[in-house]
Amino acid sequence: VAVYTEVSDEELSAFLAAYDLGQVLACKGIAEGVENSNYFLQTSAGSFILTLYEKRVREDDLPFFLALMDHLAARGLTCPQPVYNRSGNALGRLAGRPAVIVTFLTGVSVKRPTARHCQALGGALAHLHEAGRDFPMRRPNALSIESWPALFAAADGQADKVAPDLGDRIRRELAFLAAAWPAGLPTGVIHADLFTDNVFFMGDRVSGLIDFYFACTDALAYDLAVCLNAWCFEADGSFNHTKGQAMIAGYEKVRRLEADEVAALPTLCRGSALRFMLTRLVDWLNVPPGALVRPKDPIEYDRKLAFHRHVKSAAEYGLVR
Amino acid sequence: VAVYTEVSDEELSAFLAAYDLGQVLACKGIAEGVENSNYFLQTSAGSFILTLYEKRVREDDLPFFLALMDHLAARGLTCPQPVYNRSGNALGRLAGRPAVIVTFLTGVSVKRPTARHCQALGGALAHLHEAGRDFPMRRPNALSIESWPALFAAADGQADKVAPDLGDRIRRELAFLAAAWPAGLPTGVIHADLFTDNVFFMGDRVSGLIDFYFACTDALAYDLAVCLNAWCFEADGSFNHTKGQAMIAGYEKVRRLEADEVAALPTLCRGSALRFMLTRLVDWLNVPPGALVRPKDPIEYDRKLAFHRHVKSAAEYGLVR
Repeated sequence: VAVYTEVSDEELSAFLAAYDLGQVLACKGIAEGVENSNYFLQTSAGSFILTLYEKRVREDDLPFFLALMDHLAARGLTCPQPVYNRSGNALGRLAGRPAVIVTFLTGVSVKRPTARHCQALGGALAHLHEAGRDFPMRRPNALSIESWPALFAAADGQADKVAPDLGDRIRRELAFLAAAWPAGLPTGVIHADLFTDNVFFMGDRVSGLIDFYFACTDALAYDLAVCLNAWCFEADGSFNHTKGQAMIAGYEKVRRLEADEVAALPTLCRGSALRFMLTRLVDWLNVPPGALVRPKDPIEYDRKLAFHRHVKSAAEYGLVR
Repeated sequence: VAVYTEVSDEELSAFLAAYDLGQVLACKGIAEGVENSNYFLQTSAGSFILTLYEKRVREDDLPFFLALMDHLAARGLTCPQPVYNRSGNALGRLAGRPAVIVTFLTGVSVKRPTARHCQALGGALAHLHEAGRDFPMRRPNALSIESWPALFAAADGQADKVAPDLGDRIRRELAFLAAAWPAGLPTGVIHADLFTDNVFFMGDRVSGLIDFYFACTDALAYDLAVCLNAWCFEADGSFNHTKGQAMIAGYEKVRRLEADEVAALPTLCRGSALRFMLTRLVDWLNVPPGALVRPKDPIEYDRKLAFHRHVKSAAEYGLVR
C-alpha cells in the first residue's frame, strides 16, 4: 500500500497542460492498487485518478486496458473511464512512466463482505461479462494454467520453507489441473482480479469496479471462481456456503451458467486458488530489501485449495439447479 | 509515505455515525504526513482528512494541536479545522487509535520552491506567528536544545558509520550551541516543521498550512530558521541567497524581526539544522526490519550545518537593513 513514483508539482503541471481539466486543486498519492502508483487528482473540472504504471504492467497491454474501460463504461458498467487530452490521447508519460487520468469513482470497498455484498458482486461480475461480449480486442490470460509451472519453478524449490510439504502439494495440484483443466468453455473479457479492494459499494449496491490491469480473454466461469475464492471464505479458512450461494445467484440473475461451466467450477476454483498461491509464493520469497509493500500470505490459498480438493460439484459452492 | 493503520469500512461507519457528515462517498489512504495515517474522506457534506495518530504523537498533546488549529483558522489562517461530532468532540478513537476529522485544504506542495514561493511562505509564517499571539495554551518544544544531547546519545556512538567524523562534529556543535543559544527572544506558537510538504500553494499563493503535530511554544525566529534550512538550499547543497532574501522579506512584510532575533539568526539556523540532523540520524540508524518508510538522509543537514558555521550575520541569509 504505497506510492512508488513521486510526481513533482512541476511535472504534473507540464503533463496537465495537454488536458482541458482546468486548475489543479489537489493531488495526493493514494494507497490504491498494489501494481501502480495512484494519485487522487482534484481539478476545477472534477475528481480524477492519475495512474502511473509501474514495471509490472506491460506497456504494450495498456491500449487493451484503456479501450476495455471505455467499452465497458459505454455499456453502462461503472468503471474508471480514461480521460483524453486535447490531442485525443489517453496514454501519456509522466515522471518517466506511462500515465493515464481516469474518472474518480465513489464508493468504499468492504473488508468483510456480507452475503448481500456477495450477491451484488455476482451481479456486477455477470454484467461485466455481458458488457464485454462485443469487445473486439483480445488479450490472453498471462497467468492461466500454462504459466503455473514456470511460476512454481520461480519459487526455486523454496516452497517447503513457507509451509511443510507445500512443494509436493503444488506438484500434485499442477499434475491434476494439467489433466482436468476444462476446454471449450464460454470465453470473453474477464476481470481476473476482482478482490474486495477492487469493488466499491454504496451500502449494499456495487458502485464501481476498478483495477482492470489483469483483465484478459478467458473462460467467464474462471472469473467467478476467482471471486468465490476472494469473497466467500471466512477469516478462519472456512467456506461460507451462504455467501457462495448469494454470489452465484446474483451472477445467474444476469447470466445463467451453462452445463459445462457448472461441471468445471470445482476445477476452476482449484486452478484460481493455485494461481494466487503461486504469485503470492513468488512475491513472498522475493521481498526486496527495503520493500515498501508487505507481501500477501500464500498459505491462505493453500488452505482454500485444501477445501476445493474435496468439492464434488458446484452445489457445494451454493449453485442451485 | 504510507498508511500505517488500516480502517475497515465497518469501523469507519461506526465512527462516522457520531458525526453529521452524511453518506460516505469515498475514503482512501493517502501518502501525507510521515507520522500519522491519513485518509482522504469524501462524504455528501464535503471533503475531509481523517487522521489516525500513530505512536509518535503523544495523545496528551492532541488537545493542544486541535485547539491551535481552531484558533488559527478563526484568525483567518488557512489550516485544517477539526470537525466536531454531535457530542461536541473532535477527538475520537478509530481502529484502536486516537482519530480526528479535519477539513480538506486545496493546493499542491512544491518540491523545488522558487523565490516567489519562499516569499509567500515567509509571509504565511509571519501570519501564523501573529495569529498565534493570543493562543492561551502552551506546549514546550520537545525537540529544542535540551533534547539534543539525548538524541545524540540515542545514536549510540554510531554516527561515524553514517559519515566520517560525524560524531565529533555533532559534539562540537552541541558544545557551541550550549554556550551560544539565545535566551529572551520573542516567543509564541511556532509550527516547527514547516517543510515544503506541509505547505500548499495555488500558483505562487500559499493556500494552506498543514501538519501542526510539532507545533509548540518557542522562539518565533527559530521557526524562520527551520524554514531557511528547509526551503532555501539547492539540491547541490548551496544556500540560495535570493530565496533567503525573498523569505525574510516576505516575513518582515507582516512581522519585522527584532534586533536580538536578527543577531541570533545564524545560531538558530545552526540549532535547527542540528535538530533535523539528529532526529534523522536516529531514524537512519533504527530502521525496523520490514519498515514501510525510507528514512531521510541526515547528511543533507550535516552539509547545511557546515554552511551555517561560516555565517557571520543574518545579512548572509538575505536580511536587508
